[in-house]
Amino acid sequence: MKKRLKIAIDAMGGDNAPQAVVDGAVEACREYGTELVLVGHKDPLSAYLKRHPSSSYLPISIKHASEVVKMEDNPLDVVRKKKDSSIHRAMELLATKKADAFVSAGNSGAVVSAGLFVLKRIKGIDRPSIAAIMPTLAGKAMVADVGANNICKPYHLAQFAIMCSVYSRYFLHCKNPRVGILCNGEEETKGTDTIKQAHSLLKNSSLNYIGFVEGGDVFNGNVDVVACDGFTGNVLLKTAEGVAESLGSALKEELTRGLLSKIGYLFSRRAFESLKKRFDYAEYGGAPLLGVNGPVIISHGRSNALAVKNAIRAARDLASSEVVHHLQNDLDVNKDLLSIGKKPSIIDRMLSPIQKKQNS
Amino acid sequence: MKKRLKIAIDAMGGDNAPQAVVDGAVEACREYGTELVLVGHKDPLSAYLKRHPSSSYLPISIKHASEVVKMEDNPLDVVRKKKDSSIHRAMELLATKKADAFVSAGNSGAVVSAGLFVLKRIKGIDRPSIAAIMPTLAGKAMVADVGANNICKPYHLAQFAIMCSVYSRYFLHCKNPRVGILCNGEEETKGTDTIKQAHSLLKNSSLNYIGFVEGGDVFNGNVDVVACDGFTGNVLLKTAEGVAESLGSALKEELTRGLLSKIGYLFSRRAFESLKKRFDYAEYGGAPLLGVNGPVIISHGRSNALAVKNAIRAARDLASSEVVHHLQNDLDVNKDLLSIGKKPSIIDRMLSPIQKKQNS
Repeated sequence: MKKRLKIAIDAMGGDNAPQAVVDGAVEACREYGTELVLVGHKDPLSAYLKRHPSSSYLPISIKHASEVVKMEDNPLDVVRKKKDSSIHRAMELLATKKADAFVSAGNSGAVVSAGLFVLKRIKGIDRPSIAAIMPTLAGKAMVADVGANNICKPYHLAQFAIMCSVYSRYFLHCKNPRVGILCNGEEETKGTDTIKQAHSLLKNSSLNYIGFVEGGDVFNGNVDVVACDGFTGNVLLKTAEGVAESLGSALKEELTRGLLSKIGYLFSRRAFESLKKRFDYAEYGGAPLLGVNGPVIISHGRSNALAVKNAIRAARDLASSEVVHHLQNDLDVNKDLLSIGKKPSIIDRMLSPIQKKQNS
Repeated sequence: MKKRLKIAIDAMGGDNAPQAVVDGAVEACREYGTELVLVGHKDPLSAYLKRHPSSSYLPISIKHASEVVKMEDNPLDVVRKKKDSSIHRAMELLATKKADAFVSAGNSGAVVSAGLFVLKRIKGIDRPSIAAIMPTLAGKAMVADVGANNICKPYHLAQFAIMCSVYSRYFLHCKNPRVGILCNGEEETKGTDTIKQAHSLLKNSSLNYIGFVEGGDVFNGNVDVVACDGFTGNVLLKTAEGVAESLGSALKEELTRGLLSKIGYLFSRRAFESLKKRFDYAEYGGAPLLGVNGPVIISHGRSNALAVKNAIRAARDLASSEVVHHLQNDLDVNKDLLSIGKKPSIIDRMLSPIQKKQNS
């Protein structure tokens, strides 16, 4: 029999926490049969849990954490000063194998930073990155980085591509993911120097690399994995969300303008609901944090209970895909490639005294 | 009586040239009463013109240019080697005041480069930039740069903001445009060093500067003018187009899936058409080239006759708004600001021997 997975949840993270998190967790526990640990302040958490009378029979426990990370907190402070926060404590559960995966809708910078310092990086990875999973006409595409690293070196982009490619294979079940670099055109003459260098790295890699892709290619199904720096990826992600929301509002406006349109809307309602479901962020659960030693899902700050439930499903799938193990293999194959142009990174230099202290 | 404006058109530019350009020009001439000069090879142009029997009565003339700029041509080669191309010749008409505006759906890099070397920059502007006009829930927003400058200095971003702000006022009739810098978050702690420095420049400017904005803000009507480097702006533009197209295709798919939805679609058809019109690039005509000494509209490479017609309308409006004149005023007001952190640019160094030669 397969072992029942245990998932730690940052119960204090996100705009609608802790209520939406508790509600989503109870639903996920019922539907997916995963064991859950709600990490956060025990008083509000047990109060919200009690609102679900049947929850006492479910495998949900509470791990107390006295501090809360705010959205505006400096990510590094979570590791340095808020060691009893829900994010820090939950990450410790994952690091000490007391949980199999971790989900947070909280301060994503703090999750990245706790992942980096508590969970640690996978060997061969310089920078953890956040990968957005985007709905496309053909299925799903992964884009990384979308927020952890504003400025990147060519080998960072190559590492993002390798990580996403593995996640795409084992987590999204895409057989031979087509990998592209996000650029301002498809021609080899386009792009910045960093991007051109990343292009030559990936041309020589073991990946199914297809070259430069444009913003639109992510959505029409032309590519499965897109590497970019976190600044550009974040613009792409927010633009896509913004356009989809604005088009939705405008369509609603047009459809409620005249009687004929209103009648039409009633007939086609199911089509709109199906479309909404295909393109709704809440259905996707969240973004995997790539490059750390364990499965972490960062979900949207605006997550409602449905989004939390789906994030828990994603965390379960991520844990059972054993993607971290598979990743090490792909990194080893492309090892020589990734050392091109590399100097010790700032993160390496920051981590080395901490690691020395921990080892002594 | 107002003087009739004369618009030069790159009749060889764009995927559907010259036919779509000639067809669009004939329609525009009928509808807007502007005088038009089709610049390109005289043989195909007169053949396509003859297909419109009434065109002989319209104020459309042909200016012969023997060379054609291809989409893959190096932009600088147009200025150096293809002096008898439609782009170069049309830009000369504008520079010598034989035309009041210029429209091209051709190689946009070549148009920028011809603008820079033939038409010349406005005093105080270092880099011409391409401004996309985006449909929003509230009207229209301008985003620049979207393709002329991959990497920018803080004062370039500030110049883009000033230029767009003036274009927004006089061309799009927005009274007091809210100006933002595109960033990966709204907090002051976000962004790259370049963006943070541009932020402090604009905080001290005469503009209605509202701070950092995200990709989604462009579309929900929270901002009227967005400054960014050309790489990021291009990703934003292509992402927006891609999401809109993919959502359109997905909606069509859903609406034609069942009988009820199909019936609904028939009732709501007018709503969809109205939505499509609001968000269709062909309705907007094109992107103004900012920072050169004359009104230039760069329209989409995929322009059909409707897009060409609307681009001609945009060029007419741009010429009559006298925006280039107004721009000089705003640049003078913010002159001290724009000299902060400035060294002679590469373009300046490239231009100086050419200008010396021209002046001697």
